[in-house]
Order: sequence, then structure tokens, then C-alpha cells
Amino acid sequence: MRFVIIGGDAAGMSAASRAKRNKPETEVIVLEQTADVSYSACGMPYNIADPARDMNDLVVRTAAVFRDKQGIDLRLGHRVERIDRTTKKVMGLSGDGKPFEVSYDKLLIATGARARLLPIPGMDLPGVVALKSLGDGRSIKSFIEGTKVKTAVVIGAGYIGLEMVEAFHERGIQVDVCDIMPDFLPWAPKEFDKVLRDELKNKGVKFRMGTGVNSVEQVNGRLRINFSDEPLDVDFALVGVGVVPNSELAADAGLELGPSNSIAVDKYLRTSDPDIYAAGDCADAFHHVTGQRVWIPLALRANRGGWAVADNLTGKPSEIPDIVGTGVFKVLDLEVARTGLSLKEARDAGFDPVENYIQSRSRAHGHPGNQTIHVHLVADLKTGRLLGAGMIGKEGAAHRIDAAAVALHASMTVAEFFGCDLAYAPPFSPVWDPLLTAANQLLKKL
Amino acid sequence: MRFVIIGGDAAGMSAASRAKRNKPETEVIVLEQTADVSYSACGMPYNIADPARDMNDLVVRTAAVFRDKQGIDLRLGHRVERIDRTTKKVMGLSGDGKPFEVSYDKLLIATGARARLLPIPGMDLPGVVALKSLGDGRSIKSFIEGTKVKTAVVIGAGYIGLEMVEAFHERGIQVDVCDIMPDFLPWAPKEFDKVLRDELKNKGVKFRMGTGVNSVEQVNGRLRINFSDEPLDVDFALVGVGVVPNSELAADAGLELGPSNSIAVDKYLRTSDPDIYAAGDCADAFHHVTGQRVWIPLALRANRGGWAVADNLTGKPSEIPDIVGTGVFKVLDLEVARTGLSLKEARDAGFDPVENYIQSRSRAHGHPGNQTIHVHLVADLKTGRLLGAGMIGKEGAAHRIDAAAVALHASMTVAEFFGCDLAYAPPFSPVWDPLLTAANQLLKKL
Repeated sequence: MRFVIIGGDAAGMSAASRAKRNKPETEVIVLEQTADVSYSACGMPYNIADPARDMNDLVVRTAAVFRDKQGIDLRLGHRVERIDRTTKKVMGLSGDGKPFEVSYDKLLIATGARARLLPIPGMDLPGVVALKSLGDGRSIKSFIEGTKVKTAVVIGAGYIGLEMVEAFHERGIQVDVCDIMPDFLPWAPKEFDKVLRDELKNKGVKFRMGTGVNSVEQVNGRLRINFSDEPLDVDFALVGVGVVPNSELAADAGLELGPSNSIAVDKYLRTSDPDIYAAGDCADAFHHVTGQRVWIPLALRANRGGWAVADNLTGKPSEIPDIVGTGVFKVLDLEVARTGLSLKEARDAGFDPVENYIQSRSRAHGHPGNQTIHVHLVADLKTGRLLGAGMIGKEGAAHRIDAAAVALHASMTVAEFFGCDLAYAPPFSPVWDPLLTAANQLLKKL
Repeated sequence: MRFVIIGGDAAGMSAASRAKRNKPETEVIVLEQTADVSYSACGMPYNIADPARDMNDLVVRTAAVFRDKQGIDLRLGHRVERIDRTTKKVMGLSGDGKPFEVSYDKLLIATGARARLLPIPGMDLPGVVALKSLGDGRSIKSFIEGTKVKTAVVIGAGYIGLEMVEAFHERGIQVDVCDIMPDFLPWAPKEFDKVLRDELKNKGVKFRMGTGVNSVEQVNGRLRINFSDEPLDVDFALVGVGVVPNSELAADAGLELGPSNSIAVDKYLRTSDPDIYAAGDCADAFHHVTGQRVWIPLALRANRGGWAVADNLTGKPSEIPDIVGTGVFKVLDLEVARTGLSLKEARDAGFDPVENYIQSRSRAHGHPGNQTIHVHLVADLKTGRLLGAGMIGKEGAAHRIDAAAVALHASMTVAEFFGCDLAYAPPFSPVWDPLLTAANQLLKKL
């Protein structure tokens, strides 16, 4: 069987490796348009932050290993332009501009997502970069180092934008961040926004929220960011206004699309064509809490998806579990984590949600190093079911959120979650873990 | 209604406060034999470690607050010696040696546990102390400071013993630790023992494992610890060889006992006498994984138990959730955490258990500060159910264990747990969280 994979990052290479491991006689061809495979995209902000690290450190496995050790026919610089479902072929252009054509028995679309750019003038200026590919990461790092960037703006306060705020700050670059939305972390209650603003202020990071960028222009060799109010002159602009799925190939081939134009897949990662799978950032997923299709492109899912496709193709039928939308990131000294639904998402999904917000402590009463930890929970009034959780604080949010994530997978009620026997020791928690305190308070509203 | 409580620590004072809050007309009398109420016993090692902190910082709420603000009739220095179930009275001696007698409508036994001492000569020498009560904590701290302790031994390598190793080390005291068991953390695989030994060595803490203490004697104003091999001379000896429930009052009154002579209670915290409840470290619990009675005295359960008793007495019937035996502690730079059953406990409970041990990383590939994290999982071969988890490492164990604890409460299989959407960001985890990697490896044995 010939298994052709379009895209050689997390989902694609996971699928390729596992297919070969499961069934070595499978012919596996990977068509990757760039020169990079299998790198840790999420590690880029931290790599950019550190002048001593090389961007190639993020490559988990090289092309040579995939080819020589695993027997994968990995073709770099191969850009697929069309899928012909009738003849079961993909066509495209290779790096030297020559057309190519590959037939498949089974096809995996693992084309990922790309950074959104703003529909405004100046997005193509040097020093205006979005961070998505390893190439973007290299550009940013060499621009910063080559031109001795002293000031930067991050346009877009999503998690990648905020991770890049930290990266610039770490490198001693004066950084501003802006977003068209009035609040940071719009999925969370206002109190989270306040915590983040305080941290940015403490670290000397300026911000303009609720202010759109109208254009970017070059003035005296620097970049001028034109807002509706005062413009801002900087040396570098990072655009982090979200990502869009690379689903055009799939759409052109007539495959069904899911939310946000991602590629719709079933629990076996099959698209609407039984011979074509999709996985990774280009594909959608089912949300366990709502039962509905969602598009939440994250690394774990991409890896899981690649494995599941390989298993399904090699005679080990594998239903991929639903997601609950767990995410975490670090910004400066803060950990920000969430899982499940926000209040608005819960309402939109047809629940009758109630929420609560509490402040607790990261360690026991009086224990040195104690920090405030902020917890937000959402539950369904009708059933008492836990629907979502968010946390922010200087410690204790990143791993704690997993307890709530598991509770969501188990469809626990808030009362059941409150009944969980969570760990306690003074250096790590109050006797009542902040999650339990939050659950107990929320119970009073149910 | 008159609600009498024997014991004024976590369970007793939680019950007292909540009964008053739920139903202010309840007459609540607390009989506490010491002069202390409501203190954080678990905080004592950290308080002892820090010369700048006063032991009274650990008192969460003072007797005056309980009396004046909450209207609780709190009687300190009142030692109960007998419960007469026929006349529904408790009798005892007050601080001045005078007998007292109090009748009850409902009684709560919240007498806690006491430190075990070894049945060997020398346990009563000055400088030989077990740590359980706030009074013990004060004795240790004043002894250390008054006599300028330079060397100490910790007899018993349980979690309190190891926390005290850290406390002595923090104060610059040369500390040895010993245990009659050959391995540290005997519930965990050998690899955990090795990790702990390496950490002790790094910090200059000496240890003798598998060696019993025969006697302690005073020699030239110091303590000589007589082992079966070489004796050890030290200035101070901390005995941490476990605790025993204070259940004699209950036993003498003919109440049923549970495991390890704890007081047997049902899910409403009722003893075998419908008018007498027991909660906290003196009472047993049901383990969710086995369905069997266990005695695992921990702070969260004591607080939960106090609340549940108060609710049950004041017309809010409240079934206490089963425990899963989640515990965590810190020793030097290590976090040690567990939940559920060890391999042996699983076998003893009638499961057909399989285990696996993996090493993973606390952060993403190449992320600075990355530490090794060790994970041990136990599952049931017949059903595939997750039965227990343990973790040890320099970061990331303490909160992560809660995800496994919730999975145990939800009776998840290893496959279901592996399907959970856990958080990932490079500063906090590899893409596949160490728990997921461990679950995936364990699945291969199921």
C-alpha cells in the first residue's frame, strides 16, 4: 500500500513513522513544501529569547533519520497544488520548479495552519513578521540580531503574541503589545485581564488594548505603526493575530470543511473521502464537552492524530479521543491555563452556564514564596456538570489545569470534582487545593 | 441540640465552625486536651526550618475567635477519658486536675493520631522527639536553638521524616536518616529509591537503610544511637516512624474499629453508634479504587470530614466522597507524589496488577531548566483500569499527580486516561505529558 502524506510536521511525520513501525512494508511518501520537518514550533519563542541557542535545536528528528533509519520516502521542497480524487493522484511543483505527480492508495492531508496577516498596508515590509514556520523563526532571530532591534511591537495578544512579548523582554528589547480586543484573555473573567496587565506593567511592557492597527509604514528606516490614536515607531513588528487552517487543497478537492474552514474529519480522522485522512492543525476535532466540531489547533492533538491515522491504515482501528481544549502558556512570570468552555462558549453551545471566580494561594498559609492563584470555573446550571476552568498565577496553574481537564473528560459534575482527593503539602498547595475551593464556591450557585 | 466534639484540630474545629454556620442555635462544645486549636500541623517542618518564623504563625484561627466570633464553647486543657454511651456523657479531667462531665446529643470523636515511638530504651531522653503536635514542634525548635544542635538523626524515612531531613539541612545541621526498611519510598519501584538516594548524597545527607535502632543513650551530653552496626553520636534525634490513631476512647466505648485500629465510620462519618461520629486522623475511609476500608490520615480528609459531620447533624445530609490516597511531599529539591494503589496494594486488594516505570522530562526537548521526571503507573490487567500512579522529580510531580487522582475517581482505564487532552507548553511539559507517555507505555502491557 502506498501512503502519501502532504506535510512533514507533527501530524505528518508522526503518521509516517508510526505507519512504518506498525507495518514496515507500507510505502510511505511525505511531500513537504519547506526544507524543514519535525520541529518544535511551540519552542520558537523560547529559542528566539536566547541568543545562545540555534534555531536548529528545535528539530526533533532530521530528514536523514526519517529516510535512512525509518525508510520513509521524504521529499522536501515539494509543494502539492492539487488532489485528483478520481485518479487518486496529487500534483504539484518541486523546489526546482518542475511539476510532479504522485499516486496514492491512502492520502493524509497534514498541511497545518498558517499565520493570519492583517488586511492592511505594510504587512510585507521587512521587519514585519508573523511566527509560524521554522523559517519565520529564523527570520525573526536573524533580523533581531542583524539590525540590533531595540524596540518591538507585538500586534495581537493571543498566546503566541504574549510568548513573543516575553521573548523580546528577555532579550532586553523594549516591547509594546496591542490588540483590537479591549481585554487580554477574553475567554476569562475581567480579573484575569487585570492580573496580566499588572504583570506587563511590572516588567515595563506597554500595551494598547481595543485599538486597531490601520497601517504599517517605513519612516527613517524604522517601522511606524499607525493606530487610530498616536502612532508608534519601532524597529520590529511581530504579527500574532491568529492562524488559519491550510485547507484550500482539501476544499478544492471537494472535501467537506468544518469550523473556521478546517478540514472536517470523523473519529477515525477520515475526511468525506474514505481514502483521504486529515490530521494536525488543518483538521477539526470533536469537543467532549459540547459533542460539537471545533477547530483548536494544538500540538498534542496533531501528534495524536498522526498516530491514529497510521494505526487506522495499518489494521489497528483507532478512534481518536475527543478534545477538551486544554491549553497553557507562560508570559513573563505568569502561568495561564485553560480547559473546556468559557462562559460564552458554554452559552453558545446551548448550556445554561454559571461561573465563579476565586482567588486562592499557591502554597499553604504562611509558607514562603506563596503566590496568588486565580481560578475561574464554568458549570451547567441544569446538570451541575463542570464545563470549563481557567487559571492564572505566578505558579501552580500550568499542571493543575490537567486535573480539571481529566474531570471534563470524565463528564464530572462540580460536586464530583469537589469530591476529588487532590494532593496537599505546604510547599505546593493550601489544604483545600484552589481548584477544590473554586468548586466548593461554585456549588453554592448550583 | 448539643453537639460535643472531642479534639480541636482540623476535623473538630471544621465541624464546630460549620455546625454553627449552618445552624447557629446548635450548642457546640469542643473539648481539647492541649492549649492549641486549629493549627497547620503539616507546616511544622517548614516552620522549624526557618529561625525567623514563630511556631504560632501556624495557628490558623485562635481560641478567642472560635469563642467570641463563632460562639463555640471551646474548652482547652480538657482531656476526655471515657464515653458513656448509655447516659450519653463524656467524662474527663480538666487542666487543673478537676474531673468534668458533659452530656451530648451528638458526639464527634476527632482525637486525631499520635506519633509512634519505638519500643526501645532511650525514647524518653531529652533531645529525642517525635513530631506530631504543635507542642512537639515548639520543643524541637527550642531544643535546636537552645542547645545549638549541630548534628541530628532522623529515625524513619516516611514523609514526615524526610520533610524533617530537609528542615535540618536548611538550618545547616548535619543530618543522617535511617529506616528499618531497605528502600526509600517502598511503595514505589526501585528507581524512585535511587533518585532519592542521589539527592540525599548531593546534599550531604547520610543514610542507613535496612538498619534498625536498638537503643538510644546519653553519652557525654550527646545522644548515641545504637544500630546493629556502628553507633552514631548526634545532638538530636527526630523519631518519625509513623502515627497511630487515637482510638482508645472509641474502643473502650465499644465502637467498631477499622484498619490499623482507626475508628470505623460509614459514608456519613457515623460510627457504629448512631449518635457518635468520628472524623479526621482517628477515623477510617473507603478507598475508591478498592472499595475497601483504609486508614490514610491526611489533612484534606480531616477538613472534609469535619464539614460532612456538621452538615449531617444540621439537616444537610452529606455523603463524604471516597478517597484515592493522594499524597505529596517535598524533600530537599525533590517533589514526591502518589495516588491510588502501589503494585503490592493492588495485588493485596485482589487485582491482577501490571506496572510500568518511565523516565520523561519536565519541560520540552531542549528547554532550559529541563529536569528528569520519573513516573510509575499501576493498572489492572483484567479490566485495563488505572489503579495508581507515583511520580518523583525536581519539578512537575506535585500538581501533575492530581490529574491521575481525578482519573482514579472517575475509574478510568489506562486507555481513557491516555486519551485525555492535557496541557502542553515548552516551559511546562513535553508535547506528550509524562503521564500520557507512561500511560501509552503501560497500554502495551495490557
